[in-house]
Amino acid sequence: MATLSDIGLAAGLNILSAFIFFAAFAILRLQPFNDRVYFPKWYIKGLRTDPVHGGAFVRKFVNLDWRSYIRFLNWMPAALRMPEPELIDHAGLDSVVYLRIYLTGLKIFVPIAFLAWAVLVPINATDTGLEGNKNITSSDIDKFSISNVQSQSERFWAHILAAYAFTFWTCYVLLKEYEKVASMRLQFLAAEKRRPDQFTVLVRNIPPDPDESVSELVEHFFLVNHPENYLTHQVVYNANKLAKLVKKKKKLQNWLVYYQNKLERTSERPQMKTGFLGLCGDKVDAIDHHNTEIDQLSKEIALERDKVTNDPKSIMPAAFVSFKTRWGAAVCAQTQQTRNPTMWLTEWAPEPRDVYWSNLAIPYVSLTVRRLIMAVAFFFLTFFFMIPIAIVQSLASLDGIQKRAPWLNPLIGISFIKSFIQGFLPGIALKLFLIFLPTILMIMSKFEGFGSISSLERRSASRYYIFNFVNLFLGNILTGTAFQQLDSFIHQPANQYPITIGTAIPLKASFFITYIMVDGWAGIAAEVLMLKPLIIYHLKNFFLVKTEKDREEAMDHGSIAFNIGEPQIQLYFLLGLVYAAVTPTVLPFIIVFFGLAYVVYRHQIINVYNQEYESGAAFWPDVHIRVIVALIVSQVVLMGLLTTKKAASSTPFLIALPVLTIWFHFYCKGRFEPAFVRYPLQEAMMKDTLERATDPNLNLKAYLQNAYAHPVFKASLGDDDEDEEVISLKLENESVTVPTKRQSRRSTPLPSRISGASSPSLPDGIRNHPEP
Amino acid sequence: MATLSDIGLAAGLNILSAFIFFAAFAILRLQPFNDRVYFPKWYIKGLRTDPVHGGAFVRKFVNLDWRSYIRFLNWMPAALRMPEPELIDHAGLDSVVYLRIYLTGLKIFVPIAFLAWAVLVPINATDTGLEGNKNITSSDIDKFSISNVQSQSERFWAHILAAYAFTFWTCYVLLKEYEKVASMRLQFLAAEKRRPDQFTVLVRNIPPDPDESVSELVEHFFLVNHPENYLTHQVVYNANKLAKLVKKKKKLQNWLVYYQNKLERTSERPQMKTGFLGLCGDKVDAIDHHNTEIDQLSKEIALERDKVTNDPKSIMPAAFVSFKTRWGAAVCAQTQQTRNPTMWLTEWAPEPRDVYWSNLAIPYVSLTVRRLIMAVAFFFLTFFFMIPIAIVQSLASLDGIQKRAPWLNPLIGISFIKSFIQGFLPGIALKLFLIFLPTILMIMSKFEGFGSISSLERRSASRYYIFNFVNLFLGNILTGTAFQQLDSFIHQPANQYPITIGTAIPLKASFFITYIMVDGWAGIAAEVLMLKPLIIYHLKNFFLVKTEKDREEAMDHGSIAFNIGEPQIQLYFLLGLVYAAVTPTVLPFIIVFFGLAYVVYRHQIINVYNQEYESGAAFWPDVHIRVIVALIVSQVVLMGLLTTKKAASSTPFLIALPVLTIWFHFYCKGRFEPAFVRYPLQEAMMKDTLERATDPNLNLKAYLQNAYAHPVFKASLGDDDEDEEVISLKLENESVTVPTKRQSRRSTPLPSRISGASSPSLPDGIRNHPEP
Repeated sequence: MATLSDIGLAAGLNILSAFIFFAAFAILRLQPFNDRVYFPKWYIKGLRTDPVHGGAFVRKFVNLDWRSYIRFLNWMPAALRMPEPELIDHAGLDSVVYLRIYLTGLKIFVPIAFLAWAVLVPINATDTGLEGNKNITSSDIDKFSISNVQSQSERFWAHILAAYAFTFWTCYVLLKEYEKVASMRLQFLAAEKRRPDQFTVLVRNIPPDPDESVSELVEHFFLVNHPENYLTHQVVYNANKLAKLVKKKKKLQNWLVYYQNKLERTSERPQMKTGFLGLCGDKVDAIDHHNTEIDQLSKEIALERDKVTNDPKSIMPAAFVSFKTRWGAAVCAQTQQTRNPTMWLTEWAPEPRDVYWSNLAIPYVSLTVRRLIMAVAFFFLTFFFMIPIAIVQSLASLDGIQKRAPWLNPLIGISFIKSFIQGFLPGIALKLFLIFLPTILMIMSKFEGFGSISSLERRSASRYYIFNFVNLFLGNILTGTAFQQLDSFIHQPANQYPITIGTAIPLKASFFITYIMVDGWAGIAAEVLMLKPLIIYHLKNFFLVKTEKDREEAMDHGSIAFNIGEPQIQLYFLLGLVYAAVTPTVLPFIIVFFGLAYVVYRHQIINVYNQEYESGAAFWPDVHIRVIVALIVSQVVLMGLLTTKKAASSTPFLIALPVLTIWFHFYCKGRFEPAFVRYPLQEAMMKDTLERATDPNLNLKAYLQNAYAHPVFKASLGDDDEDEEVISLKLENESVTVPTKRQSRRSTPLPSRISGASSPSLPDGIRNHPEP
Repeated sequence: MATLSDIGLAAGLNILSAFIFFAAFAILRLQPFNDRVYFPKWYIKGLRTDPVHGGAFVRKFVNLDWRSYIRFLNWMPAALRMPEPELIDHAGLDSVVYLRIYLTGLKIFVPIAFLAWAVLVPINATDTGLEGNKNITSSDIDKFSISNVQSQSERFWAHILAAYAFTFWTCYVLLKEYEKVASMRLQFLAAEKRRPDQFTVLVRNIPPDPDESVSELVEHFFLVNHPENYLTHQVVYNANKLAKLVKKKKKLQNWLVYYQNKLERTSERPQMKTGFLGLCGDKVDAIDHHNTEIDQLSKEIALERDKVTNDPKSIMPAAFVSFKTRWGAAVCAQTQQTRNPTMWLTEWAPEPRDVYWSNLAIPYVSLTVRRLIMAVAFFFLTFFFMIPIAIVQSLASLDGIQKRAPWLNPLIGISFIKSFIQGFLPGIALKLFLIFLPTILMIMSKFEGFGSISSLERRSASRYYIFNFVNLFLGNILTGTAFQQLDSFIHQPANQYPITIGTAIPLKASFFITYIMVDGWAGIAAEVLMLKPLIIYHLKNFFLVKTEKDREEAMDHGSIAFNIGEPQIQLYFLLGLVYAAVTPTVLPFIIVFFGLAYVVYRHQIINVYNQEYESGAAFWPDVHIRVIVALIVSQVVLMGLLTTKKAASSTPFLIALPVLTIWFHFYCKGRFEPAFVRYPLQEAMMKDTLERATDPNLNLKAYLQNAYAHPVFKASLGDDDEDEEVISLKLENESVTVPTKRQSRRSTPLPSRISGASSPSLPDGIRNHPEP
């Protein structure tokens, strides 16, 4: 068990590392040559150009203005300044609602922490439950926790009442947030400009027909069954091979540029070997070799493109069907088309950027089988991952090291190193394990056959959450006490869980505090530094960049990784709710995490991230239900804990809590969830009518004609050199992001001008209003 | 523990009572004066008239034809003769699919029983597990059960393999049945004639508007949002008080007829007292008194009717909105109308007969609160009902009687009475308890606010099933072994359940066999006798019947009580599946039940029951999932049982079964359930097109104008004397039942003509075909 001074040291270490990250960030971001790393969003939006074109050579790379270094934490208030409506314009609804998750955490836990510290901590601290019980090594933190209350005490009534208060407060905040997010989503959908996906429905599982091609079949089916609404459709080509070729060509072109740059610098024609990884084979002239290869690939691509467009076998049994009105699309997306509900499946088309092309052709039976396989695979992944983690932890514990490597004993004897091992190592071991997981989960989701990137991410997120719950939360609580328990645990009756967990929960508080500091404090601070994109950008910039366009491509804007970030936040909700009534000491650490993460991610969303797609906050129901689950877990755990404390007279009063919480969930589900899965006809009709009035001569068919072409075909419409990435970028600029009207924002991050134009967002917001 | 001879005696008793019921039925049904009791369905359809009008007076009441008594079980093959398509025409799809539940039971259990008796029984019987263990009193039946296999035996592999075989077979049958029922439903919906509910959508939770009446609001909303499809609408009046008055008048009219008949018979003006129940108060002339009262009520009714139709406050915020096409209605029913998903809720209108009028006005929030209240109430009902049952059972057990009433010892000593107590009493005690339950559950469902009778019945059925599961199945298994266990059971860890149940299951086999015989054999045989309707009909016939119309009203045709019958069947599925691998002795008893019940209910459906509504087999998904639940319970119980048998090496192989079963359920849900909740647009469009071609001048508006008027208003459109029942009867004849073309059926049940025209249904079926 870690003592208070261990935790103090760990806190110091983590605060120090966070401080170092922030300081490094403050210095690096001010250097002009890093500008594209730390402000790519503004470049993408075309609102910022390379900082100082004229001036001294040094100034181009290093910021010599000493004043700007003084206010090195200035970016924090700056990040908070942009008002929400403008942020929606700037970064999309997904990002803004993602930030609201952190805000929700603050709204829930700040009042809870106040209540817990005002009521529960004094009650716990003044009892003497731990003094009599000497066989459990208790730490100082446990003095403030429920462990210190004596068995059968009447004081447990306070904890039960507190559990009620916490539940009601959490539900109240959740209700208000759901309400707000739902109305934001509907407002966003109503206010936004014409978009192809408003008119389009994705049709999957088109049955094969011996007489007609897929295209004819689709046209006939919808002409018959939606005669007044059907407008046009696009079939889906199986262009996976083509996309692979295009990608390969792109890579070769990069190498070509690299060699050409080398030639310019060294004035010596570069050579290369043609064999494996350029390590063996004949030596040839690199530029010539690449030119030939690219030519050959271009031919292959042209051939493959012909094949894909002309061969009926490369048409997949799926299509994007567009309608004359939003009303028609809303009707088609929400209704069943034929007797067999596994044929002609219709759903809202995802945004063109959001489509995950290679999954569109999977038939229904295959989908259900894939889902079963993945469910079983995920089960094994979840429950067998536990073992390596437990081994690493038992190795990394002080006892484990002393036992297995006794020659390290003198080193461990030093109290600083001892604290370091106890405070740092377990957290890092876990973190390393978890880094590789999201990728595996994403591959699993792709195998399951979801048709859009947003749904892939949502699925991965829920899997990741379950994994975290079992392995990070339960795994640490149960194996942490004793690794040998794992085996006996399997043979233990399943409902001993609440009691086992309840007993272990207070004991693990110090571990989770350490974890929160490593993962939630230092980890978040590292996020803002963006070391990996920084290094990659400079490498690319040095080797590949020739033109302005190349430099644009070299920027790695990144995006909110919902599938990684959201489950992480949910872990904090879980820890916070579980420990709120048990060990309130944990709460301040969680509040610091939520606050810090909110500021950092707000800054990143404003300046860095560029979302790949916009789902209109479709993920909120997932966020909501996971907080509800955390709430129910916290109630069950408290029941288990109180049972072991022999508070038999008071425990039954907790039973109403899960019932009420579940009911609350169903109420919210019925009340708000439809806003996230369906599109009300009234809204559609209003938009249609408005559009008919404002733009009566709109040629919708031309507008929708190629909206859902596969990205590789999009590329072929433009310059031959342009590739999918650029195109999709272009597309998004055309169709989604509304260019901010604020010109002043262009300069905000540059401190030398900030001092001149310090007027923040509010006046701008007002200024924007009168404009139509 | 009951011995084999106890069970033999109980079987004899039950077979005897079943035989007595059948014999009584065979005699009573042949008497002409019972004709309307046993063949009301044919009278309602107008295909049968009172049997012998001419002839001797005695022949009018008693059948003297001795030949007809010889073949007294003839009705059984006769009931099986009518082919399914004709039965759908005759009785509706609900009835036919209800019969399929019994057929499904036979399809599942006959092969399972063969396999179990061929493989498991020899394996169990040749082991010696029970010989060593003398502290459990084992009966002969246990010799054939899994109890007789020794712990840690390798023989358990056979049970595990059998569990796999049973699961796969059950799933296969379920899949085929779901497929068949879904296609029957769609065929039924497609083949049926024009019906108001095909064009109509029920709109609930219309928001209040200060400026417009509900009617105007509805019209405007749908003119705007469904401009091309909206046709007309009918608001819903709060006519609950009016309906009550009409009912009261009807009752008074019955009394009037009674006194008038009395006057005719006795030629003496009857007198009555006006006070409480006619026991006190002034003596008045009964006929005059009733005439005055009826006059006064008629005035009140007219007044109330005026009030309801003119007072805007009596219009409820709900409406039946009709569309020009089935397509339009299908679209509106399946889509969300406005931003707020709790306003303007649309769903398919139930059949006019199926509407439960008084629940149409409940707002969304109230609904969710009502649901919570009922969930909690149902929880208490379920778990506190257990105690009285357990008390009665411990009293009714042999030990209980001996302990509490030692003076009965000499009586109990007689082996016949001993067997009677053991074989009969526990079943009857339970049955009596359960008789009053469906009414309570129905009231609870009504309070919950469902809008149609069919959904009320489905809800009650699922509640009744849960109740049966907890109290009849679990309650008997757990409290039966020892009532004192109940208390300790609450404090027992929840996952000991599978093990506790698993251990108790084989011991309770004999109890459940007795229960099956009492409830499933004798109970079903009593159903066909219809004692209650028989007595009531003759009482009514004597006191109230004056005209032919009165006699028609006196008939009590009854209907399949889905909310009572289906959970009962499900109990047999549960018992059969649970005992299949444990005690195969139970299976033959269950098969007899399914076979007998199938024949009896087929006979009742053909000759007696007249369904109040037609939901198109909307209940099948409920039936399906309950069998799945039974399957999973059986697997879990087997796992628990094998765990106690220390078959640790083989038990883990069972874990895959529940996983596969749950997956199978999701597969079926996705594949078939939409057919039961949505109406495919293609079907709607096809029907629309067909109708436009065949009936181009149809005045749909007139057809739909009054389809959804409250029944009390319907009455006022016709004769003032006609009441709701007659009207709804009429309506149904007009709109639903297709008159059978077979004239010969009119006489089939009359044996004297059967002998003449013994040609059964097949030639008729063929003869019918050439007719258009």
